[in-house]
Amino acid sequence: MQNILFYHNAFIAHLEEKMPSQEPASLYDPIHYILGLGGKRLRPILTLMTAEAFNAEFKHALNAALSVEIFHNFSLIHDDIMDAAPLRRGKPTVHEKWDINTGILSGDAMLIMAYQLFENYDAKTFQELAKLFSKTALEVCEGQQYDMDFETRDDVSIAEYLKMIEFKTAVLVGAAMKMGAIVASASKSDQDHIYEFGRLLGIAFQLQDDYLDAFGDPETFGKQVGGDIIENKKTFLYIKAIEFSNSEDQLQLQHLFSVSPTDASDKVEAVKQIFQSSGSADATRKEIENYTKKAFAVLEELSIPENKKKVLKDFGHDLMDRRV
Amino acid sequence: MQNILFYHNAFIAHLEEKMPSQEPASLYDPIHYILGLGGKRLRPILTLMTAEAFNAEFKHALNAALSVEIFHNFSLIHDDIMDAAPLRRGKPTVHEKWDINTGILSGDAMLIMAYQLFENYDAKTFQELAKLFSKTALEVCEGQQYDMDFETRDDVSIAEYLKMIEFKTAVLVGAAMKMGAIVASASKSDQDHIYEFGRLLGIAFQLQDDYLDAFGDPETFGKQVGGDIIENKKTFLYIKAIEFSNSEDQLQLQHLFSVSPTDASDKVEAVKQIFQSSGSADATRKEIENYTKKAFAVLEELSIPENKKKVLKDFGHDLMDRRV
Repeated sequence: MQNILFYHNAFIAHLEEKMPSQEPASLYDPIHYILGLGGKRLRPILTLMTAEAFNAEFKHALNAALSVEIFHNFSLIHDDIMDAAPLRRGKPTVHEKWDINTGILSGDAMLIMAYQLFENYDAKTFQELAKLFSKTALEVCEGQQYDMDFETRDDVSIAEYLKMIEFKTAVLVGAAMKMGAIVASASKSDQDHIYEFGRLLGIAFQLQDDYLDAFGDPETFGKQVGGDIIENKKTFLYIKAIEFSNSEDQLQLQHLFSVSPTDASDKVEAVKQIFQSSGSADATRKEIENYTKKAFAVLEELSIPENKKKVLKDFGHDLMDRRV
Repeated sequence: MQNILFYHNAFIAHLEEKMPSQEPASLYDPIHYILGLGGKRLRPILTLMTAEAFNAEFKHALNAALSVEIFHNFSLIHDDIMDAAPLRRGKPTVHEKWDINTGILSGDAMLIMAYQLFENYDAKTFQELAKLFSKTALEVCEGQQYDMDFETRDDVSIAEYLKMIEFKTAVLVGAAMKMGAIVASASKSDQDHIYEFGRLLGIAFQLQDDYLDAFGDPETFGKQVGGDIIENKKTFLYIKAIEFSNSEDQLQLQHLFSVSPTDASDKVEAVKQIFQSSGSADATRKEIENYTKKAFAVLEELSIPENKKKVLKDFGHDLMDRRV
């Protein structure tokens, strides 16, 4: 097995090879644009790495990896329209650079292109990949819908929140890894376990994202620290804080999440204070640790040599330590 | 083989059976809504009819037929957003009844659901159906993009216009029929011929739609006669009229297509006059006849009994006489 940079570079070379200019340019230019914006390419790297963990050549998994990345970017284009987001990776979003119609239609084309990449595999593998892909893609849509529904609800439970982040984020991590296992003809049991590893790690990662948004180091956290608080986003930290607080703190927190001051620094500090004092910050750290531990425990079930397990485990640790 | 009403009713029963309530309701309710708006269900009927023409039971083609109908309705939701259309089949469009975000996400889910219906077939059939579906769906996106691009162009050629309606409308008719042939394990040659029949008939149908929009009987034409002229839509009639006219009539036509009077009846009459006097109306009728004849000629190549060819031919005639 190779290191992350190797897989990253092999993936980028494949992406560039598979993205020739096509007509109409007004449909395909935005697709090239979003796929060229960069990003860590974690999902496709996981597909390649998993394929090699199960003794296939990573090259055989390149089209499945590209499918995952194209799907992910399709979801970014459509989500950015729905969230009215002006920027993505520091550059204008597709609907900002072009318009909403372009974002809708180019996104649609990407969803179809993601399926087309499975045509490079034999019929049985094609069906397995497409079936997993469809199930996952529909869950991602459901996760996005729950996320939007939650914005106008005050009674979201921890269980509902966890299901939302599982669908919106974690299942695609699980599917990216399982696709590598499918391409490598791994056993059903190994396929299910590697999916579970990715799913659990994906939940841990998203919870950590919630946590770091409030308590991360502004120097190393990629996004604006306090961003979720400024946007009144009810993350795990918020729901837990409401659950743990006395009614006075509950009212205070609900009030803070109903206002949008121009200078938000006092608000961010006050909210973080309640997240700490209520025990929510501790509970969130504990939950992250739980999911991470559960993920690594599943790895032990895999029928692959220890040195290959270690590569996956190291990747998981790097991810949770935010070194990748 | 059965009659159209029989296939229609069998399809509706299958549609209703396959549409159980799902969560989140905010994602699935709009899907049930658009699929329940009615319409002639021509495409799925063609899938069922073609399957029986090639000696399969229509029941075996129900999931492929439903996939085609769900895809068609996905494209209606997203197109209606792009065209800012308030009504669809006389009822509010999805983005009007809910909002644009709902239309985007519910449409995305439908595109995925269309693929999932192929999971009911064996791996080889699954791959053949999904491959045809992806190719067709991408062409439909490209057709929609060309249609939007043409709105701001003054130099669209007849060849470009024909390619646009082929992609936007006709290839899905061809694919709907070919899917019936695939499910019935028809020979590759028969699959290709039935696709060609549907594609040519689809182009003829769309050209006739252009023609009837100007010259149809308000009593029997489903839409507002003159609608394309009122919206300054450069259809086959317009492009041909510009091609055939002297420079005076060209200027007059270009002027008429640059204004939007409150009472459009004089404009509609003036435009129709030029469509007639320029020879464009005649040329359009001739082109419709050409495509229809070419479609029926392809039917002769099929290796099926005459009585089955006749059912397909009768359906084609009914369609072009607008009795279905």
